[in-house]
Amino acid sequence: MTEDRLSRRDVLGAAGVIAAGAAFMGLGGALPRAEAKAAEMEKWPWPYVKLDPAETAELAYNEWYRVFCGAAVISSVFSQLKNKVGEPYASFPSDAFIFLEGGMSGWGTICGSNAGANIVTNLIIGPRTSGSETGMLMGSEMLQWYSDAELPTFNPKEPKVKVEMPRTVSNSPLCHISVGKWMKAADKSLGSPERRDRCARVTGSVAYHLVELLNDWKDGKYQTKGTIPSKSYGITAQSNCTECHGSNVPTPPSAKKI
Amino acid sequence: MTEDRLSRRDVLGAAGVIAAGAAFMGLGGALPRAEAKAAEMEKWPWPYVKLDPAETAELAYNEWYRVFCGAAVISSVFSQLKNKVGEPYASFPSDAFIFLEGGMSGWGTICGSNAGANIVTNLIIGPRTSGSETGMLMGSEMLQWYSDAELPTFNPKEPKVKVEMPRTVSNSPLCHISVGKWMKAADKSLGSPERRDRCARVTGSVAYHLVELLNDWKDGKYQTKGTIPSKSYGITAQSNCTECHGSNVPTPPSAKKI
Repeated sequence: MTEDRLSRRDVLGAAGVIAAGAAFMGLGGALPRAEAKAAEMEKWPWPYVKLDPAETAELAYNEWYRVFCGAAVISSVFSQLKNKVGEPYASFPSDAFIFLEGGMSGWGTICGSNAGANIVTNLIIGPRTSGSETGMLMGSEMLQWYSDAELPTFNPKEPKVKVEMPRTVSNSPLCHISVGKWMKAADKSLGSPERRDRCARVTGSVAYHLVELLNDWKDGKYQTKGTIPSKSYGITAQSNCTECHGSNVPTPPSAKKI
Repeated sequence: MTEDRLSRRDVLGAAGVIAAGAAFMGLGGALPRAEAKAAEMEKWPWPYVKLDPAETAELAYNEWYRVFCGAAVISSVFSQLKNKVGEPYASFPSDAFIFLEGGMSGWGTICGSNAGANIVTNLIIGPRTSGSETGMLMGSEMLQWYSDAELPTFNPKEPKVKVEMPRTVSNSPLCHISVGKWMKAADKSLGSPERRDRCARVTGSVAYHLVELLNDWKDGKYQTKGTIPSKSYGITAQSNCTECHGSNVPTPPSAKKI
């Protein structure tokens, strides 16, 4: 991925313009309400306090049965931070992300729990324009972790479906692949209570690991394993080309000088 | 997808509890600041005024060069509504969604412009728990439109790269497939200015059609074409199984009674 990067000078320059504008208008700490609120949500990193991974996973598991995978990961983290910190978590509309279910409205694209985890890391740590790539790289690390893990790694204290839950490796962050491999291994349908509970436990698993990484970051000891795969493959892609393409992996048009 | 649905009674019941709580506390219009802000962002639908599709597409095209596909679609709509309406658009942290670039941090999953469009429809119209499925179904319609369209459909007034832009049909909402088919047809690399401008124009194309649908919805004449594919295929999926599976499409485990 060879996108333009905002330089640190650009970012600081823009911040300076805003500060100068506020000073010129004599507003000081009394920006108009809308601008003050916007500034609160777009001031990164958002204040974070360490959370208990197991407790977060329990919340995410139970929230799945209300708002499904994506919104459940977001709300499991943000509902606690709303109580412990307040804003900007209190204002964020987590429930709007129910549509992430089933890989976005049942289309089987990115697993909603992965999308939710990326929304959380990028909202808390901030986007590249805030001066750090850590939020994006931590999100990417979550996608790789999800692809490699025997999921679900988390089992709730009081499972709604009491079974020995089969575990599978997706080798992909996509819902269609992850759910499909599990359904095949478990021989259970999409509408079965076992499949539903499997996805609720996967949601808990993702929330658990997400909070482990965020806690490390808060402690200043987070070393990212996240990568931007498009930088290596000449196309936006997962790293396991042959799983879908077999032995006939296309060669992307080679890089040309700009 | 056979997920549990919150009944209308549940939703109205919850609203009633909130209203009763506010009345009991004698707060009326003076809820504590955090709760008031949260209520503003989670009160659906968000106030919408009709926008000009062509103007929105120009904004999205140019924003691509700042924040890439996903955040550009969001900001092209929300920046205008911030000026015309104010809250809750002014507070929403659009820039946090830069990570949607390249199908989420370069992984090639859902095209960021599709993810951005779904975030917009679900934030404005609201999630299922607000009493309507229209936001989700309009988002799903965008995924199908994107899959079927000869993209890019939009050409900017002042293109940053002055070329006759090749157009391709992705038959998929995924970045890897959409970008890959275009790169093959155009024989251009991922890092080329032409590929970059193609994705900026696709972003404009998505923003254009998104606003057409939202304007219809505002006028009360929106009839959704959106579907939830998992309801038909026994798995979360696109509808064109053979494109990836060839003639060997697996049969999902059959539905079992719960």
